[in-house]
Amino acid sequence: MTTSRPPLGPDAIVECVDAVRRQNPLVHAMTNSVVREISANVLLSIGAAPAMVDSPEEAGLFAAGADGVLVNVGNPSAENFLAYRAALDVAHAAGIPWVLDPVAVGGLPPRTEFAREVLALRPDAIRGNASEVTALAGRSAGGRGVDSTDPVEAALGAAAELAGRTGGVVAVSGERDVVISEEGTTWLTSGHALMPLVIGTGCSLGAAVAAYLGAARAHGLSRHAAVLAAHAHLGAAGVLAGRVARGPGSFHAEWLDAIHALDGAGVAELVTLEHEAGLPSAAEGAR
Amino acid sequence: MTTSRPPLGPDAIVECVDAVRRQNPLVHAMTNSVVREISANVLLSIGAAPAMVDSPEEAGLFAAGADGVLVNVGNPSAENFLAYRAALDVAHAAGIPWVLDPVAVGGLPPRTEFAREVLALRPDAIRGNASEVTALAGRSAGGRGVDSTDPVEAALGAAAELAGRTGGVVAVSGERDVVISEEGTTWLTSGHALMPLVIGTGCSLGAAVAAYLGAARAHGLSRHAAVLAAHAHLGAAGVLAGRVARGPGSFHAEWLDAIHALDGAGVAELVTLEHEAGLPSAAEGAR
Amino acid sequence: MTTSRPPLGPDAIVECVDAVRRQNPLVHAMTNSVVREISANVLLSIGAAPAMVDSPEEAGLFAAGADGVLVNVGNPSAENFLAYRAALDVAHAAGIPWVLDPVAVGGLPPRTEFAREVLALRPDAIRGNASEVTALAGRSAGGRGVDSTDPVEAALGAAAELAGRTGGVVAVSGERDVVISEEGTTWLTSGHALMPLVIGTGCSLGAAVAAYLGAARAHGLSRHAAVLAAHAHLGAAGVLAGRVARGPGSFHAEWLDAIHALDGAGVAELVTLEHEAGLPSAAEGAR
Repeated sequence: MTTSRPPLGPDAIVECVDAVRRQNPLVHAMTNSVVREISANVLLSIGAAPAMVDSPEEAGLFAAGADGVLVNVGNPSAENFLAYRAALDVAHAAGIPWVLDPVAVGGLPPRTEFAREVLALRPDAIRGNASEVTALAGRSAGGRGVDSTDPVEAALGAAAELAGRTGGVVAVSGERDVVISEEGTTWLTSGHALMPLVIGTGCSLGAAVAAYLGAARAHGLSRHAAVLAAHAHLGAAGVLAGRVARGPGSFHAEWLDAIHALDGAGVAELVTLEHEAGLPSAAEGAR
Repeated sequence: MTTSRPPLGPDAIVECVDAVRRQNPLVHAMTNSVVREISANVLLSIGAAPAMVDSPEEAGLFAAGADGVLVNVGNPSAENFLAYRAALDVAHAAGIPWVLDPVAVGGLPPRTEFAREVLALRPDAIRGNASEVTALAGRSAGGRGVDSTDPVEAALGAAAELAGRTGGVVAVSGERDVVISEEGTTWLTSGHALMPLVIGTGCSLGAAVAAYLGAARAHGLSRHAAVLAAHAHLGAAGVLAGRVARGPGSFHAEWLDAIHALDGAGVAELVTLEHEAGLPSAAEGAR
Repeated sequence: MTTSRPPLGPDAIVECVDAVRRQNPLVHAMTNSVVREISANVLLSIGAAPAMVDSPEEAGLFAAGADGVLVNVGNPSAENFLAYRAALDVAHAAGIPWVLDPVAVGGLPPRTEFAREVLALRPDAIRGNASEVTALAGRSAGGRGVDSTDPVEAALGAAAELAGRTGGVVAVSGERDVVISEEGTTWLTSGHALMPLVIGTGCSLGAAVAAYLGAARAHGLSRHAAVLAAHAHLGAAGVLAGRVARGPGSFHAEWLDAIHALDGAGVAELVTLEHEAGLPSAAEGAR
């Protein structure tokens, strides 16, 4: 394991965090109805502009003006699938970065088929937990509800395979997060034990990744750095919030306050990175 | 009125609260779009795992793996009704406990007909306010919007009738809550005046009941005790939150913190129970 | 510019704020799924009773019993449009006050056509940002996502034109808000810089306007005063919350606490009004 170094160390994070604040990227967040409010609040707190448009009549048109697009497949209706597809076709054709969050992919055929199908539209980033990433790659049947039943390490091979197939970045969330792309493998330590007890902290990370990719594209920064910085920003805020929160209710408010308060240097100070030059073997975690 | 005694007194509550924390039951919560976030956060804070899946293509499949199912009929689309039905058919066939929350039943024919129809699938628990429970039993036209226009006492007869017809537990929320089943009638005093000023404190109680029924089933505890304990847990947290909250905004956060902090013994200390051995006469509250 | 005076000065605000608390108006809020929870909480905190019913089968029936109706066109499905139309037909026929919030109108044809079409049903109030109001009047193509790209001043002519066409009140939100009707033009200074960083503070203002119009109608107060008072109430709470909030997360909770704590006199003390007797020229802000 090599030590952290630019462009995938602390400096890259500082650059990306500050780029989002400068650009105020417009994020077209198509996400499930449980987490829309927190996702929009996270986007506002990082310095992005959120908008949620998921009807088939409007989604494609709206995507054309966005800086980044998120599709989170938690609880989609048949109409939502049409809207997602319309928006992704536009994003793909226009080169607008887009993120796939494969919530609970595995056991539920409609979303599983959809998520696997849109891999052909080359998501710039995939973000999920270990069970979701493994199931998306066709290697397992998924987790328990929306929870992972696997450790992050078990998804390394699946993540590498997906990164290879899409040419994009794959991030697996867990106790430690990992970000994988052709630029290498970066492990991130941050967050707090209360974070998974607030609904939508994971889903809103997907929305933040779309914002970061939008800002990175405008500033010529790498997608790997952008995905890493989004994880670092929300995770660093988790560290701060965890110091003062008395439970999941106060954590929620403290977390948003911390996301808003942190600049790039503040984020870099609060997280630990470990970078390896290569990709994990696609055989890792296989079963 | 007899004094509280096991299995429907404080000891039963302690057992149920701690059983939920041990089991982490997976709750399939099909609920209205206003209260999804708070319902999911309440489930996480009691120690359950929330998931919301309400498309007709996925709901039945998802229900099969859940420990408890909630159907809250606040603001359903035509598609939602199909999803609810699919999930309830699965839950009924598999013996997975399910909860009916008859939000605003009475004045609105689509949800009223649906709610009355699924009584045939024998909900393990019904939870609503006095106007909703009375209207569900066909004895009145319901309340004003989502608010009750009746005191809890006025719904005793309707609740007893519904408990008899379904073989399940019926809980009526109000200044004092009442839980009714063939095991008797238990009155619960808890909560705080700010609680009804936070949207979803009632609806998320329905979700919590589904979690408690799931844990009770796994641990061989009674459904009456489970429904009572869910009410006691969220009500006891209301007592604690009310001591420090400065208004409904801070109450919301304090309430989630308190739900998370309380164990069974803590819950039992903060609430007052009065248990009567029999059911109310079905003629009570009739008009 | 004349100085503030009744009925459009502080006394009118006091009367309206206290009228809402006395009447507890039932608000049928048909709004986008991102902001339903905060909108309901704002309605509860001002002293109103919220209900969200937006299926075509129920919306018209429900509107008939409401004191005020909101249609917020953020992210509507085809089914939602049918529901909105059913509710508005009922409200219009029964003289129930209704509010149009033209979220992101301009660039998206489905909602833009709908919003322009229902102007014929004479909304009692229109509330939006400068870009939305300008686009609704057909004078521009709208803003960027849900954000305004224009200052309030640029929308004065469009607002005056819409007020003339509908006979109602038009309010434009911005750094200073303006309320325009045949009763004149009132500028309002209130709020805080963190307010736009909490999603739904604007959308829930639309819901509050519906409550205020309902109470004003029952108490024989003017619609202009009602719309102004709704803006003043939420803006004054923003002033208070801004004094103690540490970021957008704590602002959200503090804001709801302040909305709940303020009475009419408290609101009037915290805001600055400037009233002009006439309407702006319809040529203002034209391009």
